[in-house]
Amino acid sequence: MTYCAAALVDDGIVFLADTRTNAGVDSVSSFRKMSVFERVGECVIVVMTAGNLAITQAVLGLLKEASVDPKRRPLQDAGSMGEVARMVGRAVRDVYERDAAALKEHGIEFSANFVVGGQVGDELPRLFQVYAAGNYIEATSETPYFQIGESKYGKPIIDRMLRSSSTLTDALKCLLISMDSTLRSNLSVGMPLDVAVCRRGELRLGLRVTLPQEDAYFQSVRASWNAALESAFNAVPAPPWPGVSRT
Amino acid sequence: MTYCAAALVDDGIVFLADTRTNAGVDSVSSFRKMSVFERVGECVIVVMTAGNLAITQAVLGLLKEASVDPKRRPLQDAGSMGEVARMVGRAVRDVYERDAAALKEHGIEFSANFVVGGQVGDELPRLFQVYAAGNYIEATSETPYFQIGESKYGKPIIDRMLRSSSTLTDALKCLLISMDSTLRSNLSVGMPLDVAVCRRGELRLGLRVTLPQEDAYFQSVRASWNAALESAFNAVPAPPWPGVSRT
Repeated sequence: MTYCAAALVDDGIVFLADTRTNAGVDSVSSFRKMSVFERVGECVIVVMTAGNLAITQAVLGLLKEASVDPKRRPLQDAGSMGEVARMVGRAVRDVYERDAAALKEHGIEFSANFVVGGQVGDELPRLFQVYAAGNYIEATSETPYFQIGESKYGKPIIDRMLRSSSTLTDALKCLLISMDSTLRSNLSVGMPLDVAVCRRGELRLGLRVTLPQEDAYFQSVRASWNAALESAFNAVPAPPWPGVSRT
Repeated sequence: MTYCAAALVDDGIVFLADTRTNAGVDSVSSFRKMSVFERVGECVIVVMTAGNLAITQAVLGLLKEASVDPKRRPLQDAGSMGEVARMVGRAVRDVYERDAAALKEHGIEFSANFVVGGQVGDELPRLFQVYAAGNYIEATSETPYFQIGESKYGKPIIDRMLRSSSTLTDALKCLLISMDSTLRSNLSVGMPLDVAVCRRGELRLGLRVTLPQEDAYFQSVRASWNAALESAFNAVPAPPWPGVSRT
């Protein structure tokens, strides 16, 4: 299973991905789910993937080989993030055309989801989710985030805390707490974590770190969040009805 | 959609259910998902349902008509909660036998899930989840709760806060906060809420209340939890990496 999330705020975009891939409990591996396409000073694009690993790797393969494939253009050549989203969608459809029939023969669903975000030239940063059908939606100030993979456990905290006016720091904290909830509730989502940040106007990756299991900062987020939740829980008033507590 | 959860703690069992049923956005109704079977001083049994409403109502119908149906025994006659779980499972299988083929003709899945808990005689309180196939599992001190329906949004807070040593008060607070997270993230789960509490050894329902949309206590839980979460969020340390915040 996978959990990836990205948040689009006024100052830029934060991306977070786990690295666990599994096909049953006895086949658990780590694969990177975050890829960066960058041309410093011109554009910075981050692609995160969830779904069938063979499919998502095939799509990324097409995108990465575009610079040496005369039939394709590299994502870095796109004139806008909208064009980037369409190029990713087209790559998904090319893989579908090549592989979907064979997968169907084996009863395997064509499952693939992509979060694509970044900034091209003078545009503001933009964030998209691209579906297995190659179509896509764009994040707005009302819904300034996308999640793919095991998204439900980590959604409530994002719904509560993230606004498009949040700082990049708060957006990253929010995604890390969301990941913590997901890691606790689904064992098949796992460390290490990949983090990337695109700050508005910089046209290059502002931050790219990988957090190992023992990362001190993530451990402190988990511990402080857990302790704070416990006090928060204790602060919630007790039910007013007789018949609950043993009197 | 539905969200029901029950927590088995040392002092008894807490049950919580929403009441929203929907079959598409223009067809939203409220139906009770919690039924009580009680013989004061002998047994108290609570059944909560999720899934296809026609199926779950048919199963409950069989259980409720058992007192007038010579081919069946009422749940209240069971000698143990294990027998109660098997009787519910048998009713599910009876409905399956009657309806599953016709449902299949119409491409409708036989979906039905039940949480069944309570206390019979001298036994300790016990909690079960009964599946559409009529088989079942029992809660343990390691996993002292069950959820059915839209369970993922509300799972992290239960995983963090609920222990079998929790008080009934804390267990109820925990389920209400879990419900709050679910209500925020899935519009098709809705108020009013049904709450029931079985205290160990009482062999009768200790509490049964319905919380309407405007219930003052539930509003105070939501408000205090949201405020406390915000302070908790602010207390989480900021990321130590340069490149996140705009410097």
